[in-house]
Amino acid sequence: MQFTAQEIGSLLNGKVEGDATVSVSQLAKIEEATAGSLSFLANPKYEQYLYTTDASIVIVNDDYQLAEPVKATLIRVPNAYSAITVLLDLYNKIKLNKTGIEQPSFIHPSAKIGENVYIGAFAYVGPNVTIGNNSRIYPNCYIADNVSIGNNVTFFSGVKIYFDCKLGNDIIIHSGAVIGGDGFGFAPTGDGSYQKISQIGNVVIEDNVEIGANTTVDRATMGSTIIRKGVKLDNLIQIAHNVEIDENTVVAAQTGISGSTKVGKNVIIGGQAGIVGHINIPNGTQLQAKTGLSRSIKEEGQKWAGSPASPYSEHMRSQVVLARLPELEKKVIELEKIIAGLKGVQ
Amino acid sequence: MQFTAQEIGSLLNGKVEGDATVSVSQLAKIEEATAGSLSFLANPKYEQYLYTTDASIVIVNDDYQLAEPVKATLIRVPNAYSAITVLLDLYNKIKLNKTGIEQPSFIHPSAKIGENVYIGAFAYVGPNVTIGNNSRIYPNCYIADNVSIGNNVTFFSGVKIYFDCKLGNDIIIHSGAVIGGDGFGFAPTGDGSYQKISQIGNVVIEDNVEIGANTTVDRATMGSTIIRKGVKLDNLIQIAHNVEIDENTVVAAQTGISGSTKVGKNVIIGGQAGIVGHINIPNGTQLQAKTGLSRSIKEEGQKWAGSPASPYSEHMRSQVVLARLPELEKKVIELEKIIAGLKGVQ
Amino acid sequence: MQFTAQEIGSLLNGKVEGDATVSVSQLAKIEEATAGSLSFLANPKYEQYLYTTDASIVIVNDDYQLAEPVKATLIRVPNAYSAITVLLDLYNKIKLNKTGIEQPSFIHPSAKIGENVYIGAFAYVGPNVTIGNNSRIYPNCYIADNVSIGNNVTFFSGVKIYFDCKLGNDIIIHSGAVIGGDGFGFAPTGDGSYQKISQIGNVVIEDNVEIGANTTVDRATMGSTIIRKGVKLDNLIQIAHNVEIDENTVVAAQTGISGSTKVGKNVIIGGQAGIVGHINIPNGTQLQAKTGLSRSIKEEGQKWAGSPASPYSEHMRSQVVLARLPELEKKVIELEKIIAGLKGVQ
Repeated sequence: MQFTAQEIGSLLNGKVEGDATVSVSQLAKIEEATAGSLSFLANPKYEQYLYTTDASIVIVNDDYQLAEPVKATLIRVPNAYSAITVLLDLYNKIKLNKTGIEQPSFIHPSAKIGENVYIGAFAYVGPNVTIGNNSRIYPNCYIADNVSIGNNVTFFSGVKIYFDCKLGNDIIIHSGAVIGGDGFGFAPTGDGSYQKISQIGNVVIEDNVEIGANTTVDRATMGSTIIRKGVKLDNLIQIAHNVEIDENTVVAAQTGISGSTKVGKNVIIGGQAGIVGHINIPNGTQLQAKTGLSRSIKEEGQKWAGSPASPYSEHMRSQVVLARLPELEKKVIELEKIIAGLKGVQ
Repeated sequence: MQFTAQEIGSLLNGKVEGDATVSVSQLAKIEEATAGSLSFLANPKYEQYLYTTDASIVIVNDDYQLAEPVKATLIRVPNAYSAITVLLDLYNKIKLNKTGIEQPSFIHPSAKIGENVYIGAFAYVGPNVTIGNNSRIYPNCYIADNVSIGNNVTFFSGVKIYFDCKLGNDIIIHSGAVIGGDGFGFAPTGDGSYQKISQIGNVVIEDNVEIGANTTVDRATMGSTIIRKGVKLDNLIQIAHNVEIDENTVVAAQTGISGSTKVGKNVIIGGQAGIVGHINIPNGTQLQAKTGLSRSIKEEGQKWAGSPASPYSEHMRSQVVLARLPELEKKVIELEKIIAGLKGVQ
Repeated sequence: MQFTAQEIGSLLNGKVEGDATVSVSQLAKIEEATAGSLSFLANPKYEQYLYTTDASIVIVNDDYQLAEPVKATLIRVPNAYSAITVLLDLYNKIKLNKTGIEQPSFIHPSAKIGENVYIGAFAYVGPNVTIGNNSRIYPNCYIADNVSIGNNVTFFSGVKIYFDCKLGNDIIIHSGAVIGGDGFGFAPTGDGSYQKISQIGNVVIEDNVEIGANTTVDRATMGSTIIRKGVKLDNLIQIAHNVEIDENTVVAAQTGISGSTKVGKNVIIGGQAGIVGHINIPNGTQLQAKTGLSRSIKEEGQKWAGSPASPYSEHMRSQVVLARLPELEKKVIELEKIIAGLKGVQ
């Protein structure tokens, strides 16, 4: 796809300075851009590159004053950063604008498919599934019996949704994510072996959720594992049975949340954190990467770190002393000697 | 599926109290149940809900004495908890009772498929594969050359089994699990690069094993990586080449076990634990979540925690003092001052 | 496949001692080998097994002196270990020597496929994809629009490559790995929710890279996430957007590297390590398993451990004292008492 400076200027309601006929086919960072690229200057730190870049077009703020002449065509807009966000979205929409049903795919006759939908080859849509309008199911996805999916949902290739799960609108799930696998529930028997506890609940995912590649969200034993609206889960995360994650909470990669734990709204959880089951994490909590949390947190909006977790400032104080620990031990040994000496003197 | 109180009562050999014709189509927790639901009261803690629930049918113990009248039809059984387990299993069997071969699927002419088997669309069954009776291979699974699979095995959608692996009976493997990928073996060459060491062994999985979603079990370099009967692995676990995990051991999500390590029987390993290669973990050991174990454990049946791991009680003592560490350092500094004073006095 | 001692001897330029017509169909460790197996003696530690093994053929060093007669046919070579490596590779090549295009598969008419390629059933090759010669795409793989793949590349079943990614030659990617999923980028809005930042970059993977099962490598926000030649990534690893990993670096399972971090050449990273974003790790660095690294490292070739990470020797010193911490606290309390006594005396 080629766009001229004229076309992009119109799209952004911007003012073109320089050759309006020059065209670009890709977006690039200003310090890396080659001819044929569109770039932007939003952060003054990168100003120097404006004068050396090979980008064919650069988007700058309205009020930006040139220090010297530039090779590139400029497009002036009120806010270069916002403008580029608009362009990124547009670019992505063009990239991901697949529709139609590819063959071979498997769509059960009882499934209800909305309008303007993409279903890729080797995708499986089971009995009584409903898929809303403008949704995109990439190749090799599996959607089991009775799953409902709203409008404008994107499943990238290889997403697996077990039976009975309920998904809202505007959801993105990345490749390899597994939604609705059995919770890890086993009852010990007398002889040391375990008996499986059937997991007959489901997973409910509300609007505007994004779930990363190869993340797993287990179905509830009974009832629902719930991911509320606006939640963002990164890659390779484990969400166990009957967990509830409230609105707009963000979880970084490789974190695990054990069964029946309730996570509040606007919580931020770093990568590789581990959270035990049956506890509460209140609204606005922040857990640092690698935090190991083994009991409920009472107060909202606090920052925690370490394993076992403690309030962030306490954790940092302990860490600082920990680094001085060998030195501290030496001091104590010296003190012992001195005191032994003092006692000897007496 | 609709069932009447009469039908469920007969199934459980229970005694129906109230309207025996009322019917239910789902199971629900007593505190969340709506009309048309079957629920149960096993834990006295939830007794209050019996009198307010909208459940149409509630299963209670034989000897349960009503404190006031209830709306729901009751079914009395010797043990409400056992009864519900029976129903859960039944419910699950109905849900997962697929048979037949969906098209398009790929079944090599040399594969031997048992009776009453389900093979989903886009599943791949390679040359010389054998699959036992009553096994279910969900859509998009891949079973490579010479793999053998026993009776009553379930692979949910997207399970991948590399060539030559051997699996027993009554095994459940969840979506995205990868069995038999190459072990991570490379020999350094003179120039800083690495040469791959071919991994020509396999994976052996015995009866009654369950493996979680997106878990990976690598093939042995030579010989077998072995998962013995009754082992339960949660999601996103890494089992490296030539590991052996003995009977009825349970491993929680996101744990990693490195190459050639031997794990005993009835071991319990928490989530996100990491275990180095070439060590032994004896029968009955318990590792807390996030344990980092770097050497063999000698004594059976002990509990370990921390990274590096230490016996649980030692670990807890150190953690307690660790929290007091800043205070301890302050004390030592004070003591130094006092002693300096004392020395000055002499 | 059956091979005689004569055939294997010729292949390795070795000298056959004993029955040259005996044949083998598998490789096995000398201590586990059964009749019909080929084995080898490279490590003197296993010498005893040479005299008891049921292996039909054993490869030994030229200069190995028999202490007593052996049942097995021997093949003498200059270096038994090298010889076995040659055989392993050969064995693996025979095992993985698939070619041709299985049906049903999906190959877009605009895709360019090289010679001697294997494309398995249910594999998806999108518009404008290029695949080089001798490459193998196993069943259920997904290769999105505009992806380019070099020669002699192997994707095992279920690999997913998002659009626009560029891959070199001699690459192996294991089942379930996801290359090019969206980076985890969201801008907070005023109301507590987040807006997705479109991720329009790609992933570049150079020659001789191996990537483990269910590992995820995210596409760059803009520009490229880069895995340079000779890098080896184990299973279940997370590589975030805009990360660069330089040549011949090796990363063990379940490690996570956050956005925009640069990892040098010949770095070795243990399992379950976590590395924050926007930092540098210089050439030759070694990070122990479970390291939590939160700032750049300056000096090359150093070993780090712990979370937060410190230089290995410092970390070990602190760990040793940490184990003595309860004892240290007791000492300080005793000193306090003694000093209180001394003060009382004065």
